[in-house]
Amino acid sequence: MSDAGPPDRRRVLSLRTSRMEALSDGIFAIASTLLVLDLVVPAVSSNVAHNLVKQWPIYLAYLVSFATIGQAWLGHSVITEYLERADSLLYRLNLVLLFFVSLLPFPTHMLAEYFSSDTAERIAVTVYGLNLLAISGFISVLWHYAVAEHLVRQDKSDADLRALTSKLDPSLISYVLVIGIGLVQPKIAVVLYLLIALYVIIPFRAVARVIRRARRP
Amino acid sequence: MSDAGPPDRRRVLSLRTSRMEALSDGIFAIASTLLVLDLVVPAVSSNVAHNLVKQWPIYLAYLVSFATIGQAWLGHSVITEYLERADSLLYRLNLVLLFFVSLLPFPTHMLAEYFSSDTAERIAVTVYGLNLLAISGFISVLWHYAVAEHLVRQDKSDADLRALTSKLDPSLISYVLVIGIGLVQPKIAVVLYLLIALYVIIPFRAVARVIRRARRP
Amino acid sequence: MSDAGPPDRRRVLSLRTSRMEALSDGIFAIASTLLVLDLVVPAVSSNVAHNLVKQWPIYLAYLVSFATIGQAWLGHSVITEYLERADSLLYRLNLVLLFFVSLLPFPTHMLAEYFSSDTAERIAVTVYGLNLLAISGFISVLWHYAVAEHLVRQDKSDADLRALTSKLDPSLISYVLVIGIGLVQPKIAVVLYLLIALYVIIPFRAVARVIRRARRP
Amino acid sequence: MSDAGPPDRRRVLSLRTSRMEALSDGIFAIASTLLVLDLVVPAVSSNVAHNLVKQWPIYLAYLVSFATIGQAWLGHSVITEYLERADSLLYRLNLVLLFFVSLLPFPTHMLAEYFSSDTAERIAVTVYGLNLLAISGFISVLWHYAVAEHLVRQDKSDADLRALTSKLDPSLISYVLVIGIGLVQPKIAVVLYLLIALYVIIPFRAVARVIRRARRP
Repeated sequence: MSDAGPPDRRRVLSLRTSRMEALSDGIFAIASTLLVLDLVVPAVSSNVAHNLVKQWPIYLAYLVSFATIGQAWLGHSVITEYLERADSLLYRLNLVLLFFVSLLPFPTHMLAEYFSSDTAERIAVTVYGLNLLAISGFISVLWHYAVAEHLVRQDKSDADLRALTSKLDPSLISYVLVIGIGLVQPKIAVVLYLLIALYVIIPFRAVARVIRRARRP
Repeated sequence: MSDAGPPDRRRVLSLRTSRMEALSDGIFAIASTLLVLDLVVPAVSSNVAHNLVKQWPIYLAYLVSFATIGQAWLGHSVITEYLERADSLLYRLNLVLLFFVSLLPFPTHMLAEYFSSDTAERIAVTVYGLNLLAISGFISVLWHYAVAEHLVRQDKSDADLRALTSKLDPSLISYVLVIGIGLVQPKIAVVLYLLIALYVIIPFRAVARVIRRARRP
Repeated sequence: MSDAGPPDRRRVLSLRTSRMEALSDGIFAIASTLLVLDLVVPAVSSNVAHNLVKQWPIYLAYLVSFATIGQAWLGHSVITEYLERADSLLYRLNLVLLFFVSLLPFPTHMLAEYFSSDTAERIAVTVYGLNLLAISGFISVLWHYAVAEHLVRQDKSDADLRALTSKLDPSLISYVLVIGIGLVQPKIAVVLYLLIALYVIIPFRAVARVIRRARRP
Repeated sequence: MSDAGPPDRRRVLSLRTSRMEALSDGIFAIASTLLVLDLVVPAVSSNVAHNLVKQWPIYLAYLVSFATIGQAWLGHSVITEYLERADSLLYRLNLVLLFFVSLLPFPTHMLAEYFSSDTAERIAVTVYGLNLLAISGFISVLWHYAVAEHLVRQDKSDADLRALTSKLDPSLISYVLVIGIGLVQPKIAVVLYLLIALYVIIPFRAVARVIRRARRP
């Protein structure tokens, strides 16, 4: 389905963004909901409460993965909000992003299982971090490609575009740093992954804005 | 992705509601359909019928959770019906709601497993109730935020808005009450959770209206 | 969320059909795809081929359920094609339909498991038939309600509406008949359920039309 | 629901493509995300890393299936981009395609399980190939039917249609060839299946175009 032929622009198929959005929303929704299958219900016993609390690493892994998928979805939805149209290469880059989103339940499961063992935990946290980095990386690639190929809406100013770029790119560096930290201190890395996701999800400035407005007479 | 800068209104990104609806419909659909994986088929034996009937708590938990997700979806779809547009904070509040929707299969599974044991059942019913309260609570938060930030359609009157508020908020109080009851009488609490959901789903007045109309000559 | 108040028509909330369609498509898609989890891969052995063939009842159950969900989706999509708008009762009737769609993997699993035992098989086939009947029944209810409440598009003639009614209702009678047959001959009933679904899915007249057109010079 | 009656054209129900797209996107998304459930996390042990690497056939099967579903989705989305409207036979042909898409996790699981045994592997690779052939085949059928029945948009030239045909049909021949190869060399066949999918997904010419543009002063 690679587009053909020399008259460079003409034969490039201009695609609606709707199906790309529909497949993406489907995969984001399923990947985040499948995570719940990892939450194990301990067998009935006299200390069920204790057993439920004891498996906190499973809950933490669930929370980090849900938050990360949520963060990725937020980035993705802002990008498509800016898109005028898609082309066949954007469709494909998006597929690679979705591959890494749909893969996330696997390292999440590893994280939950390997929390007790030192070596295994280090491997799990590293694989997990690489998956997060890939998701974050392909969201940035998607955005930079869309800007470079003039797929964004004409009514967006260069300042708008730069503002979004400056929001999407920094997480990349954070993930690289935390992967490094994870090799030494895996448990701290997991908490940092949660903080990175929450930093994007919790809208500090919007909250401040709402509070400011509420205070006005 | 937190929106930036002082000129308060201008830089706030106005978002379509379509992607928020798509992700939500996806997660509502998957969470309610994943519940079926909890319905265990008893092994072949001479008294299969008896074994099928004996696991009625699993069916009840399935029914309550499906009804609750259905009720939440109804509330969510009426809210988006009123929305003119979304903003980045609404997107995030919606993500938190979806987190609790996607979590529901876990306490549902607990409910089905712990029905036989007294202590375990109390824990399961309480965790379950807190999850239902969180879902119901964030639907109310979503609505109040949308009204406060003028995200609702201009053609809706204040009376319309108050009418919806008076439908969404009461379930909150019911859930708090039933969580209290569940600490003493867990089985009764489960039945009450079903009644709360059915009270919203069964449209008494609409049914009365259809009957009235059918009777007219 | 039941609509309020006496001035009968005015306060009835007119809803878009889009979210009802989105949730339905989601649940139809997930219910039909979750069925694949029932297809067991036999352990590696010298006669893998034989073991794969031996579990044909699992394949048959998969095929019947996929075909039935497909048939239900076809009916549902034709109904929404005729809809001008939805109301709150239609949303709720649709939720009951979706409940039975999302339930189908459970009796499908029973069917696959109980094929070898006489008594168990009879129970499985009956439960399965009742589930199919409920799906088919609520599709008819949805349609009759939409016609009675004038929710269908104005450009559809009475003949159009009657034509669709005469397509949707007959399956109800077939299901009741086959549930009866299943009590005596469960295996035959399963084959008949497949035939009912295929009769709707295979578009005999459309195929005939294509063939007629192909023959024209 | 087969359309009725002699005045050939008039009674043929013209359907929106939106619901067909929604169901398809749902099933493509779920089938590709369910694959992740096959990725087993090895038990904690001193050589977790080794055990993770040892199960490479599972990863390979996952990758091939995700890539194939991605390729099929790309083909499907380009076809619907060309569609003006759908008819009831197209809806049904699409259902058959979706049947084979939703089935793919089953042979994928077989492929991952049977990699160690000679006979079993041959069977798995053949069943897998037949499934891929069916997906690819029904995408071609969908396209040829849409062209023959004039369901495509009027603004598309005959050259546009021929260009798409010449992209969709060749994979059919490749799959037939590789099924043959798989009977002798099953492992090589799996690698070839990956190459076929990647050949469609990696947009060589689009990449070349981007590179050419980047080089321009």
